[in-house]
Amino acid sequence: MLNAMQLLFLGGSQNLVPFLVVVLLFCSPCLVPYVSVELMLMLFFWSKIIVFAFFFSFAYLGEARKKVYFNNPMWPGEAHSLDVKEIIYKGKSEYQEILVFESSAYGKVLVLDGIVQLTESDECAYQEMIAHLPLCSIPSPKSVLVVGGGDGGVLREISRHSSVEHIDICEIDSMVIDVSKKYFPELAVGFTDRRVKLHVGDAVEFLRLAPEGKYDAIIVDSSDPVGPAQELVEKPFFETIARALRPGGVLCNMAESMWLHTHLIDDMISVCSETFKGSVHYAWASVPTYPSGVIGFLLCSKAGPHVDFSNPVNPIEKVEGAITHKRELRYYNSEMHSAAFALPAFLKREVKSL
Amino acid sequence: MLNAMQLLFLGGSQNLVPFLVVVLLFCSPCLVPYVSVELMLMLFFWSKIIVFAFFFSFAYLGEARKKVYFNNPMWPGEAHSLDVKEIIYKGKSEYQEILVFESSAYGKVLVLDGIVQLTESDECAYQEMIAHLPLCSIPSPKSVLVVGGGDGGVLREISRHSSVEHIDICEIDSMVIDVSKKYFPELAVGFTDRRVKLHVGDAVEFLRLAPEGKYDAIIVDSSDPVGPAQELVEKPFFETIARALRPGGVLCNMAESMWLHTHLIDDMISVCSETFKGSVHYAWASVPTYPSGVIGFLLCSKAGPHVDFSNPVNPIEKVEGAITHKRELRYYNSEMHSAAFALPAFLKREVKSL
Repeated sequence: MLNAMQLLFLGGSQNLVPFLVVVLLFCSPCLVPYVSVELMLMLFFWSKIIVFAFFFSFAYLGEARKKVYFNNPMWPGEAHSLDVKEIIYKGKSEYQEILVFESSAYGKVLVLDGIVQLTESDECAYQEMIAHLPLCSIPSPKSVLVVGGGDGGVLREISRHSSVEHIDICEIDSMVIDVSKKYFPELAVGFTDRRVKLHVGDAVEFLRLAPEGKYDAIIVDSSDPVGPAQELVEKPFFETIARALRPGGVLCNMAESMWLHTHLIDDMISVCSETFKGSVHYAWASVPTYPSGVIGFLLCSKAGPHVDFSNPVNPIEKVEGAITHKRELRYYNSEMHSAAFALPAFLKREVKSL
Repeated sequence: MLNAMQLLFLGGSQNLVPFLVVVLLFCSPCLVPYVSVELMLMLFFWSKIIVFAFFFSFAYLGEARKKVYFNNPMWPGEAHSLDVKEIIYKGKSEYQEILVFESSAYGKVLVLDGIVQLTESDECAYQEMIAHLPLCSIPSPKSVLVVGGGDGGVLREISRHSSVEHIDICEIDSMVIDVSKKYFPELAVGFTDRRVKLHVGDAVEFLRLAPEGKYDAIIVDSSDPVGPAQELVEKPFFETIARALRPGGVLCNMAESMWLHTHLIDDMISVCSETFKGSVHYAWASVPTYPSGVIGFLLCSKAGPHVDFSNPVNPIEKVEGAITHKRELRYYNSEMHSAAFALPAFLKREVKSL
């Protein structure tokens, strides 16, 4: 699940501003806490809040403590705002703050630590691509591991694959799963598949203990590589993944925006080329609510049988039951699969290994 | 050129807020003029302006008249904001308000009537695709017409094609051309090509007077179909284009976002299928500063020699001098050309004629 945007949110204020809150997302690293109590007051006295502001710290208004989420470092110098119809849930787990709101343009939105993870309207692109790019690239996948993905959307997509016999999912935060089951049933339905085995815990530890060569495919549906997810883009993590894959097994890892994060992409590709020793490719998809409107995927195969990622050997249209699944495919098809590997000239130039 | 975002801009205020202005873009149709003088005052007293607000009308602060650009109806319920380093130019032509500013994330930005038209960082995707998708789909294009495109970026791209002998451009607003020549020399360089003939005037009238069958390709680089550009998506306009194309000649027309404007796309395709009687296809590209991060292109061929748009018969890599042009291609290549025609499942379902 991608961290997408900086979210500004007035904690505890939903009773006071019940109608419309504009979630303001901003990322300029030079922003400073210029917002005054004056502005905060306006927020409370307007029946429709149409704008508020950026903080680097807490602000107070009377008795109410204002918690503000800020600064997605993955998207400096710009902001994306969603019109909020209603705040549906707000809580704090052992690991992060969790927010669910109803937006006027994208349906319900899941936010973790102030960063938009998914919206009902465009989650299809991310979930379908991160699941089917790897699973359609190998014949008859049987054993799959999902790292992260507590909302269940990736599981929902994996469940289209009738060849799959076993799906492990290792999610660190059980509250994300609970919130998804309550507010995002169209994603959490993935947990109802009888092939799914849930492991709540640290994925790095889980992978260390996994039998060598256990998985045909591993899908890393993690947060942005800042904060706690940092180690998920480092070499030791990829080494534990490579170890857990069978020869010719595949990894699909969320890999940021080609417009914004070419250095990070370059680094990940270098590390993965050394580690997996099979093929390493980059693909991308359009997701409007993610920074710069795109999200990338790193696809790696472990040394062994060759994997031709851009020409799916196991096309979704031929997977029994995949198309007639109770939820239709919304973004993915075999044409989109192959097209996702076409890369802009600037990316090929900047990331030499592509 | 695509109208992309709603831009909020305090006219005449650049001397008073010299350091940093946040351009706030918002599109909710339900927004009302809730901004008070209180907020406006804050704008002037902060040395770094980090937020301001949404208007449907003019606001005043002391003597200074505040003009606000607002409400791109193509993108309701969300907003995109760019951090403004410096306002470089502001003026008003016979047709529209013109603004140029330096952003911190995307270089210089051109804004017409409050809607972002292009940024230096991502204009490559739009200009290269709208020019090369049609020109690489036909063998040896010789006569080309550009409708709109006053910034010169499309001309710059057409000039890579050594087969082209004559380029007409019909732009209604000469001030756009002048502003581009002054502030966007990397785009306006397109006007220096000796094959270019500039016609300042109304494109509908120009096309009516054009000899039948004159052009191999027509590229419509227009604004969003709201306001004055409305007639550029209607049947009579497409009929004049079809008339001006040779048999088997091609049109490439800016065609909005597949995420936001499926009805409009459906309408355009229906009209064009009736009008051109050749093939009609939809392609898309990633452009971060356009609504939902994508822009679409409608590609039509007039009845005559068949045009296989998704497999370029005139690949850019084989066009003499196209790759070694003084400016490198940044987005387009033949892989991106073909990939652009792969469409998400939802679009194929919603636009039946695709």
